Amino acid sequence: MIIVLEQNPEEKQLDSLKQWLNSMDINVQTIEGIHSTVLGLVGDTSTIDIEFIGALDIVADVKRIQEPYKQANRRFHPLDTIISIGDVKIGGGNFAMIAGPCAVESHEQICMIASSVKSSGAAILRGGAFKPRTSPYAFQGLRADGIELMLEAKKEIGLPIISEIMDISQLPLFDNIDIIQVGARNMHNFELLKALGKINKPVLLKRGFSATIQELLMSAEYIMAGGNEEVILCERGIRTFETTTRNTLDLASIPVLKELTHLPVVIDPSHSTGYAKYVKSMSLAAVAAGADGLIIEVHNDPANAMCDGQQSITPEAFSELSAHVNELLPIINKFY
Amino acid sequence: MIIVLEQNPEEKQLDSLKQWLNSMDINVQTIEGIHSTVLGLVGDTSTIDIEFIGALDIVADVKRIQEPYKQANRRFHPLDTIISIGDVKIGGGNFAMIAGPCAVESHEQICMIASSVKSSGAAILRGGAFKPRTSPYAFQGLRADGIELMLEAKKEIGLPIISEIMDISQLPLFDNIDIIQVGARNMHNFELLKALGKINKPVLLKRGFSATIQELLMSAEYIMAGGNEEVILCERGIRTFETTTRNTLDLASIPVLKELTHLPVVIDPSHSTGYAKYVKSMSLAAVAAGADGLIIEVHNDPANAMCDGQQSITPEAFSELSAHVNELLPIINKFY
Amino acid sequence: MIIVLEQNPEEKQLDSLKQWLNSMDINVQTIEGIHSTVLGLVGDTSTIDIEFIGALDIVADVKRIQEPYKQANRRFHPLDTIISIGDVKIGGGNFAMIAGPCAVESHEQICMIASSVKSSGAAILRGGAFKPRTSPYAFQGLRADGIELMLEAKKEIGLPIISEIMDISQLPLFDNIDIIQVGARNMHNFELLKALGKINKPVLLKRGFSATIQELLMSAEYIMAGGNEEVILCERGIRTFETTTRNTLDLASIPVLKELTHLPVVIDPSHSTGYAKYVKSMSLAAVAAGADGLIIEVHNDPANAMCDGQQSITPEAFSELSAHVNELLPIINKFY
Amino acid sequence: MIIVLEQNPEEKQLDSLKQWLNSMDINVQTIEGIHSTVLGLVGDTSTIDIEFIGALDIVADVKRIQEPYKQANRRFHPLDTIISIGDVKIGGGNFAMIAGPCAVESHEQICMIASSVKSSGAAILRGGAFKPRTSPYAFQGLRADGIELMLEAKKEIGLPIISEIMDISQLPLFDNIDIIQVGARNMHNFELLKALGKINKPVLLKRGFSATIQELLMSAEYIMAGGNEEVILCERGIRTFETTTRNTLDLASIPVLKELTHLPVVIDPSHSTGYAKYVKSMSLAAVAAGADGLIIEVHNDPANAMCDGQQSITPEAFSELSAHVNELLPIINKFY
Repeated sequence: MIIVLEQNPEEKQLDSLKQWLNSMDINVQTIEGIHSTVLGLVGDTSTIDIEFIGALDIVADVKRIQEPYKQANRRFHPLDTIISIGDVKIGGGNFAMIAGPCAVESHEQICMIASSVKSSGAAILRGGAFKPRTSPYAFQGLRADGIELMLEAKKEIGLPIISEIMDISQLPLFDNIDIIQVGARNMHNFELLKALGKINKPVLLKRGFSATIQELLMSAEYIMAGGNEEVILCERGIRTFETTTRNTLDLASIPVLKELTHLPVVIDPSHSTGYAKYVKSMSLAAVAAGADGLIIEVHNDPANAMCDGQQSITPEAFSELSAHVNELLPIINKFY
Repeated sequence: MIIVLEQNPEEKQLDSLKQWLNSMDINVQTIEGIHSTVLGLVGDTSTIDIEFIGALDIVADVKRIQEPYKQANRRFHPLDTIISIGDVKIGGGNFAMIAGPCAVESHEQICMIASSVKSSGAAILRGGAFKPRTSPYAFQGLRADGIELMLEAKKEIGLPIISEIMDISQLPLFDNIDIIQVGARNMHNFELLKALGKINKPVLLKRGFSATIQELLMSAEYIMAGGNEEVILCERGIRTFETTTRNTLDLASIPVLKELTHLPVVIDPSHSTGYAKYVKSMSLAAVAAGADGLIIEVHNDPANAMCDGQQSITPEAFSELSAHVNELLPIINKFY
Repeated sequence: MIIVLEQNPEEKQLDSLKQWLNSMDINVQTIEGIHSTVLGLVGDTSTIDIEFIGALDIVADVKRIQEPYKQANRRFHPLDTIISIGDVKIGGGNFAMIAGPCAVESHEQICMIASSVKSSGAAILRGGAFKPRTSPYAFQGLRADGIELMLEAKKEIGLPIISEIMDISQLPLFDNIDIIQVGARNMHNFELLKALGKINKPVLLKRGFSATIQELLMSAEYIMAGGNEEVILCERGIRTFETTTRNTLDLASIPVLKELTHLPVVIDPSHSTGYAKYVKSMSLAAVAAGADGLIIEVHNDPANAMCDGQQSITPEAFSELSAHVNELLPIINKFY
Repeated sequence: MIIVLEQNPEEKQLDSLKQWLNSMDINVQTIEGIHSTVLGLVGDTSTIDIEFIGALDIVADVKRIQEPYKQANRRFHPLDTIISIGDVKIGGGNFAMIAGPCAVESHEQICMIASSVKSSGAAILRGGAFKPRTSPYAFQGLRADGIELMLEAKKEIGLPIISEIMDISQLPLFDNIDIIQVGARNMHNFELLKALGKINKPVLLKRGFSATIQELLMSAEYIMAGGNEEVILCERGIRTFETTTRNTLDLASIPVLKELTHLPVVIDPSHSTGYAKYVKSMSLAAVAAGADGLIIEVHNDPANAMCDGQQSITPEAFSELSAHVNELLPIINKFY
């Protein structure tokens, strides 16, 4: 950490700052510049509050050199984390296709889609029971009943399942869900993240649509700091000024995350673009960029889906896409 | 609502869409253009799911004419809502100053600040017990103990109090808190909003730092749809590419919100700019733009504040600012 | 175009609006809603000024149905445009690799790089003579001398060349340059675009880093409206809140542009990410998403490049990347 | 400037970097951290190219401590710059109201508006001759004839005038224009800025709608580095995700700019919001925040304006606003 001091800092305050830093086992080195003096901090600064330092009268600016996350940091865990769900593996060279409807609607619907995507190569079934909707008047999901239907599909079709949690109080319902999804709108729900840090189950953490990559890693750190190290990161588009797509899919986050962290990275081409017609090209691009998986909305009858039908592809389109991905993967794997 | 059809839409699908709309008491009028056909929907379209329509094969685009919120809509409630907390009023020409520390730290701290800001003209005391922090390693607030200290300050100093809730499970602790604050990171926490719709207490709802004004009003609608109509809106800066301030304070949201809704609008110059040195000018600008109140961080010793000291002003600075605001208000009130 | 009227519009104004529209051969259809009345305009609305309509007292909102660009619109030109530069073709299934240094520095430098990228499969040589730099104190390019060096490299090595123009007055210098590049910062330089509309030479138009896709197409329309139909579009990253990359590469712009326009789309992975280490994965992703070409910065000695070395890859890295792209292309071509 | 080195940097490269820095009269101090080594650079680093350093293999990151602008920097020029145009002064406690139509349309129009705004207290007349329009099919201004009409209004009504330049080639036409305006779309047109640096006339430089405050100051630096120190900065809204206003007016830029630079700051409430109905509140807010002036679009018949009528206020509204501003100014001046 680098502290840029104001010109002519009060000596007493400066001494007190240095002593406080020393008391935290941080060694302070001073560089006297022409217009400003800079303090270089040597030691473990990850737990130092950058805003606390910045509030001091004698401080003009604070710049972090070391990343503020540790558990999620590749610097301290050079090897890729591999998440296992039964026989399915994600990360460290293992690619997984996650597919299913935005919202679970009925036993028939979820089982039909599950059966179809399984035969096309999906490794995990997705399906929403609790749905975060912008409008209180829109369909909010089947909730507890939806979880029940997911479990029936898991049993009947034999795919591990992932579903989204929206509140701590729902946690007991997720006992038999294989992966818990934290949606983009809850990436900053720190109380929920802390609760998920205490369970023993993989969490797929979606990047908030206005979260930086560092904030995504800090939210992963919340879960990992609690003891749960099985975190899958998911890029699903960020909010920008562009309106032809719902959000802007930040595919460069794949190589950036691969550099900064050891956690697997999955891409959601459905929510990011918001249109079924762009799912194919963005899926192939994600694979080419080195993603560890895709999470795709599939619906047997998109035009009658109870939510987000606009972005769901049909089982037939998924089957074709899955074949393309499988043809692409071995070539891409040679390149990295 | 306007539906733009794809060229040469399948007639059977089009008939089925029209029948479904008619079944919802919506009258459909057709405009045949040269390159595209447009359907105009007449009736209450606020409960129609725009994404559901957009998913249909025959639909190229859907555009909403009517706002998707009703309770919060000034069109249906032309008069300003006035929120009363004891003798304090916000909205409809009533201006309130809310002040206090970012985080409650001790009985002495909160009472000293409360006493000071009260004597300078603050009408409501703010103080955080549950603190949303980006890092799991940063101070997370005194939590239940902090609420207790707020209640002591309320009793001792005699100011109504506001504090932030972060999870539904904390709700019982807020029984004697006068206003519940929903932070920017929870504006999209729909489960929490629904729970707050069922209580009988004012809620100060902060705009998410990447939320549109319409999304803020939809979140207010979540609370109001549950029966709780006492919502105070708060602009606290939005995320942009500019980095000299923590966020970009969107003061034009004041006249925009005044046009769209009857709810009061409060401005937070502390979190939006992130620096104490910009609080004064942004507070005066907010008053000049017609805000119904200000929520300002005040700390007796900003440099030793346990969180966000960088943006807290001293009691002395608050006292001066409060005097300026009081001199400005009667003039501004003549202008609107 | 759809015009939403204010409630109870003054009849005289409304009549005068309808007459004016009729005088422009536009047929007006009226939909009487419950809360608002909507006018549907049938006819060629591309030349109607949306802000002019929006300024009328009786108008609440205006929404465009038809795209405001015509020459660049795929609706009116369904077939892909193919740009030919000698034997090199871009678009309509033809992929081209453009490579070279950010700035031309010397005869030896540009010829050495040109020779190297040519042998690795580059079809076109890029090299900057006029450099737009944020600081007036940074290297501004060799200017006219740089153009001269590019022409020498063209003659010596035998690759067609592309270079960036920054002002109309530089146009005569570009007589023997094969493709004129308009940089992101000049995408809205309408006087320059008009001048380029009157010449007979391909223009590579970079998307402004804060321009929407529609604005990019409107800038292409400026060139095409002047008579020059040879426009190549280039996505080079947009400005967002994310800071780990210089800009956010919007790869979804590829399928979006393919849908909206017939013009070829080239991707710049160097400027968008700002780091050599991310060029490979973003290049492969662009190819997988269906791009018609790549424009890549290559420098024999990036650490001593006179500008933008941070994002330049070495000739060796380019050679490897080019081989990967060539292996990927035939597979991807089967998928689209 | 702070250089963060990669782990285990090659010693030869490191020595060569240090020698090069020393050769530029920069003293290098080394801080050995646990995970990384940091170099602190002492000396004038404003002319060092941050990207050049960043490209070195041994460098992980570069952070600037000193601002990269000098002429525009308040650190080196503590006193406010006051720009004089005849008797009119802007900056250093002098407030000026600039008003007039978006586009000059006729002798009668510009003189009628000029006369009206002059009697309401405007000090400078604005009027566009060259209009940057997104569509090539929209009205592009009267161009040279428009400049002629502005000069006639100046002579007839007796107000100094400001108009926008769009290309270097137009410069001779601006000989008798008092202030040359550089529009938001040309803030990064460095060739134009350099040309304006060589003339002897005030320049009003608008912030690009996606430009950071530092970039605005770097563009001012381009003009000042050429010798022309009379630069007026203008905030006119930045591009964000919010759509209820055309752009987001960044009023916090006023105190930020006042801190960083000595140049005067003018606010454009018309283009930033895009709607006449928001001009009043944003004008008052700008005054309260400490702006040195306002530039406002006024049109006698907004609904028939040839461009941007939606955001123009009537002469009557301007007269009322001007009276409000005059009542507000003496009070605000006491506060700063």
